[in-house]
Amino acid sequence: MSDEFDAVVSQVRERVSPDDDERERLQRAAAAVMERARDAVATLPVEAEVVQVGSTARGTWTAGDRDVDVFVAFPPELDRAELETYGLEVGHAVLPDGHEEYAEHPYIVGEMDGYAVDLVPCYAVADATAIQSAVDRTPFHTRYLKSRLDDTLAGEVRVTKQFLKGIGVYGSDLRTQGFSGYLTELLTVEYGGFRAFVEAAAGWHPPATFDLEDHGTTEFDDPLVVVDPTDPERNVAAVCSAANIARLQHCARELVDEPRESLFEPSEPAAYDAERVTAAVERRATTPVTVRFARPDVVEDQLWPQLRKSLAGLTEELDRRGFDVFRSRAFAADGETGGDSETAGDAGHAVLLVELSVAERPAVERHEGPPVHVRDHATGFYETYADDPDVAGPYIEGDRYVVERPREFRTAAAFLDSDALLDVRLGPQVESALQEGYELLVGGDIAALADEFGVELADYFEPSP
Amino acid sequence: MSDEFDAVVSQVRERVSPDDDERERLQRAAAAVMERARDAVATLPVEAEVVQVGSTARGTWTAGDRDVDVFVAFPPELDRAELETYGLEVGHAVLPDGHEEYAEHPYIVGEMDGYAVDLVPCYAVADATAIQSAVDRTPFHTRYLKSRLDDTLAGEVRVTKQFLKGIGVYGSDLRTQGFSGYLTELLTVEYGGFRAFVEAAAGWHPPATFDLEDHGTTEFDDPLVVVDPTDPERNVAAVCSAANIARLQHCARELVDEPRESLFEPSEPAAYDAERVTAAVERRATTPVTVRFARPDVVEDQLWPQLRKSLAGLTEELDRRGFDVFRSRAFAADGETGGDSETAGDAGHAVLLVELSVAERPAVERHEGPPVHVRDHATGFYETYADDPDVAGPYIEGDRYVVERPREFRTAAAFLDSDALLDVRLGPQVESALQEGYELLVGGDIAALADEFGVELADYFEPSP
Repeated sequence: MSDEFDAVVSQVRERVSPDDDERERLQRAAAAVMERARDAVATLPVEAEVVQVGSTARGTWTAGDRDVDVFVAFPPELDRAELETYGLEVGHAVLPDGHEEYAEHPYIVGEMDGYAVDLVPCYAVADATAIQSAVDRTPFHTRYLKSRLDDTLAGEVRVTKQFLKGIGVYGSDLRTQGFSGYLTELLTVEYGGFRAFVEAAAGWHPPATFDLEDHGTTEFDDPLVVVDPTDPERNVAAVCSAANIARLQHCARELVDEPRESLFEPSEPAAYDAERVTAAVERRATTPVTVRFARPDVVEDQLWPQLRKSLAGLTEELDRRGFDVFRSRAFAADGETGGDSETAGDAGHAVLLVELSVAERPAVERHEGPPVHVRDHATGFYETYADDPDVAGPYIEGDRYVVERPREFRTAAAFLDSDALLDVRLGPQVESALQEGYELLVGGDIAALADEFGVELADYFEPSP
Repeated sequence: MSDEFDAVVSQVRERVSPDDDERERLQRAAAAVMERARDAVATLPVEAEVVQVGSTARGTWTAGDRDVDVFVAFPPELDRAELETYGLEVGHAVLPDGHEEYAEHPYIVGEMDGYAVDLVPCYAVADATAIQSAVDRTPFHTRYLKSRLDDTLAGEVRVTKQFLKGIGVYGSDLRTQGFSGYLTELLTVEYGGFRAFVEAAAGWHPPATFDLEDHGTTEFDDPLVVVDPTDPERNVAAVCSAANIARLQHCARELVDEPRESLFEPSEPAAYDAERVTAAVERRATTPVTVRFARPDVVEDQLWPQLRKSLAGLTEELDRRGFDVFRSRAFAADGETGGDSETAGDAGHAVLLVELSVAERPAVERHEGPPVHVRDHATGFYETYADDPDVAGPYIEGDRYVVERPREFRTAAAFLDSDALLDVRLGPQVESALQEGYELLVGGDIAALADEFGVELADYFEPSP
């Protein structure tokens, strides 16, 4: 088994290592970007340092990645408005065809010589605990890792990254909620290589805690805790979901038990067509309902937390109303990278899918009153309902009054079709989108989603770890 | 209001007080029973005291009651078998046409001069804490109350009894779970009269605790606690259900707010016929299911705890299986008073009615596995299901594996129609009866119960406090 594992890994390592030609071309491109950036900085009335960051700076990118990240570090005294102005000025000078994106402050994204370039202004703070903006940390991360990585370890990092990509947990964006590049590199450094990392991860008992500099000061309530070597109060793995950690553990065991290259290859299921969706709904005999609306035109990191929040709000409310949510999922068209002139319609749809166990509730619902001995409340309750011809009771159950009154919504569809939907806990842009209008699909009719979300539906109906 | 209250009570008092003629006839009948009992005791090789007990002994019976209770108190040294033999001997001598019933030991029930006579052997223990059998307490209760009751208070006791009968909470039998005669008399004595009792009960904050002799030594976990004046370790109100106490409080407020004689009159609703049952089921759009079986031929005090236990077991299991019990109720034909030759069929039916909110579940059910990090269990779970073609998953949710597998029973009827019904927590005689056979009715078909249980169904569908 040992030989098999090493054989698989060395195949992968070979495949994901950029060859000399790729390295050279990337270095050349990065150098050109930095050169232009320095020239642009020279025209500014302030000093600023141009630094290359990210995996291409550290030599840990996987073959074929074409991202160059360059930061312009301004003096910490500079006020934020000026930093933004100067940052954009440099960005536009370097990338005349680039466009603005916005995280904590705006930055420029563009292309040069076939490479995707991010040009980001930050503050050159004294250490990572003094940051003024989240991006200020990045140069510290790059410096920290550069000092610990050699060529061999960089190769191990590439294999780890490729594995996490293959099993679908790579990326600290809020859609994925997985492992960032920095986190991946720290774990590989901590374990000294891919194999030790995978074998250990297979046996983790969350919370799995790492503190490479042994300087952590804070308790974290996360299943994976990697104290930032450059900031003792930060958990590098804070964004990692419990499910992704479980997924890593599952796949680590699969790889150890039966090493195979397929685990390093991202794969998606064959899209379901309408017919297969209908068949799945019939087979399961559940009641799926979907709310389909125009995808809010916001970046993925804004959209996905809102979709999750909305789905949780909907699930909670449908459970409360007795429709017993079996499983649920949000789908959304991929976001445009920075397009700013699209209408919502062009951005495709977003969908909240809630699969219910209960199709229909009775015409009546129970409503428990106060204990009879709480005299004022109890009498008030009794008098409210005693002469109501639409109500059964009040009667006594245990020490309480109970009435049975007409139920507001007998089906989830009736609820979702009403204004009450907007009272559910929703993300703000999801709420606005729903106010603009939405389409309700029930049962087999959700087959209409297959055109846009066939892959997602396949994954939903045939779920794997 | 005060005048109205007193006017109503005095009407009731008048009505429930036996007139001189009734008193005299009852005393004569009781004297005759005691005379015959003493004669029979005289033929025995042991001494025994004949005592009259119960409300007719204490002068607190309500007009029309025709119960005479006579106890034969044997020396405590007598062994139990002899006590039973002698007791029955005396009983048969007094009541040649009587028959045996059985509580803790057998006793004789019969009729004399139009009075229902119980002739019960007991031990003449030194005090009520030294009892050898529950009935040994009764003479102490009678002595205690006799020493505290005068004619006026006996009149108040009668009104209290009539009120508790009127509102359906009188009787410490295990079907009613209400107020025993002894408890009723103690509470009336404690409050000094009916009105003070009712006004106080309207404002009770359970647990309502009374200790007339201020000698209680035990903590009771009951909503009403009346420490037995003859036994500091016993709660006279132990059998009283929370619902009956709430019912008393509700009706006490009704009487205080709007005094009326109807509250002193037991009433039952007009029986539902099949058509009304069908209409009720349609109106509610619930899914009632009933299990109808031959009423086990046991006394009510044995039957009702078993019916309740069985109903709770059924409710629990149907809830667990997702059918969401809306309300439930047991019905049973009245028990025969001591008939010992009936077959079960002659004793009518018993019914467990469970009204469900959920008619049907999906073809699939969720089955949560262990957290992925519990390696051995998790791997075992994964391997069990990974290649099962009938199962969706295993997939990961939170930190756990989950599978979706075929559901065993999609309807409550399918479950109730299967042997799995007998795995539910049932009373032993209910279980035996179900093993002999039962009939399942679903939805509108429960209208078939109207012939036997029309009143019960009316009360079920139009419940009042």
